[in-house]
Amino acid sequence: MSRDARARVRDDTRLKLVWAGTALLTEKSFAGTGIEEVLQAAGVPRGSFYHFFPSKEAFGVAVIDNYGAYFDRKLDRLLQDGALSPLARVARYVEEAARGIERFACTRGCLAGNLSQELGAHSDVFKPRLEAIFAGWERRIADCLREAIGEGALAAAVDPDTAAEMFWYGFEGALMRAKLDRSAEPLRRFGRYFLETLGRPAKPRSRSKRRAREVQP
Amino acid sequence: MSRDARARVRDDTRLKLVWAGTALLTEKSFAGTGIEEVLQAAGVPRGSFYHFFPSKEAFGVAVIDNYGAYFDRKLDRLLQDGALSPLARVARYVEEAARGIERFACTRGCLAGNLSQELGAHSDVFKPRLEAIFAGWERRIADCLREAIGEGALAAAVDPDTAAEMFWYGFEGALMRAKLDRSAEPLRRFGRYFLETLGRPAKPRSRSKRRAREVQP
Repeated sequence: MSRDARARVRDDTRLKLVWAGTALLTEKSFAGTGIEEVLQAAGVPRGSFYHFFPSKEAFGVAVIDNYGAYFDRKLDRLLQDGALSPLARVARYVEEAARGIERFACTRGCLAGNLSQELGAHSDVFKPRLEAIFAGWERRIADCLREAIGEGALAAAVDPDTAAEMFWYGFEGALMRAKLDRSAEPLRRFGRYFLETLGRPAKPRSRSKRRAREVQP
Repeated sequence: MSRDARARVRDDTRLKLVWAGTALLTEKSFAGTGIEEVLQAAGVPRGSFYHFFPSKEAFGVAVIDNYGAYFDRKLDRLLQDGALSPLARVARYVEEAARGIERFACTRGCLAGNLSQELGAHSDVFKPRLEAIFAGWERRIADCLREAIGEGALAAAVDPDTAAEMFWYGFEGALMRAKLDRSAEPLRRFGRYFLETLGRPAKPRSRSKRRAREVQP
């Protein structure tokens, strides 16, 4: 094999391990996920793990970074889609998330949420990474809400940063419940409630009025 | 020792194990909590664990039941306190929860939330117990909101059951974040947002108007 071909195989093996870990850690705890299990899920030969990652913690960091980057791309795609009104984009994101968990029989939750719950208070290596992920998610929802305020679809009194923070709290809680109930309905109910309780303008302009209807249940 | 004294020691040892497990499982995952660790935290001699619990899962069930009963008592005490308006009781519960986690440097979360996240989708033994706990918590908040509607402090259009469900989603998400941030402020911000976005009546009666102010930030 040429040097380039070897490098490709190396990158490919590392990526397989990281994606296998990403899938496993949306379902199970970090403590409950064994390296053996990751190797098996990735279909990668034994012994290669420590070639790529000095420790299980270093692997966890790579998985968090991978999940963060994947999710940022997804949020940008859905929340910056100019074809829909800003509030309809939020509603669509929730619906996509609901369908996403249904594809895995609602056994998968949010990796960042799971790891925050399990290790947030204990790991100084994971903590700043998880916080950066949530900050990016909040910023993206806040930008969308700010756009809705600018268009007159939300009352000017709505604080987009606080509302975005609350969006993710509710979303994470609903996701936890979806896992327990093995149903995506908690997520859908949360999405409707969040959008319904956001402050509407007293007298919406006609354009925003029409658009606002798109996200009503 | 008499038969009664022996029974007391036995009950006492079992209780020590259950409470030690309760504290540990608010902080750590079920998979990451070893039986050895529980014994050590309880100050109970090695070997006594399997005398009381046939398996780690059976121990988990006892811990969940203990946590559920403890929390129900706490919620009843705070949410049925007639000295405060119904909405002020909800605000006070959130503040008590915030202080509660501050006492443990925000390292402890919600045991029912943690276990739902970790094992909800995987354990048929834990699932119905966790669902029953959440149903009881939702009922208690819904009762409070129903009382607020009856007093005119909330709009009649508010659906107390849906709002109560959303209260716990947001509460669990905020608690997860509190653990990550090592601060109780996410919980306090959630409590304020939840109460502020509940539908207020268009023209509150004077009594409820006065009372509504109690819970404003």
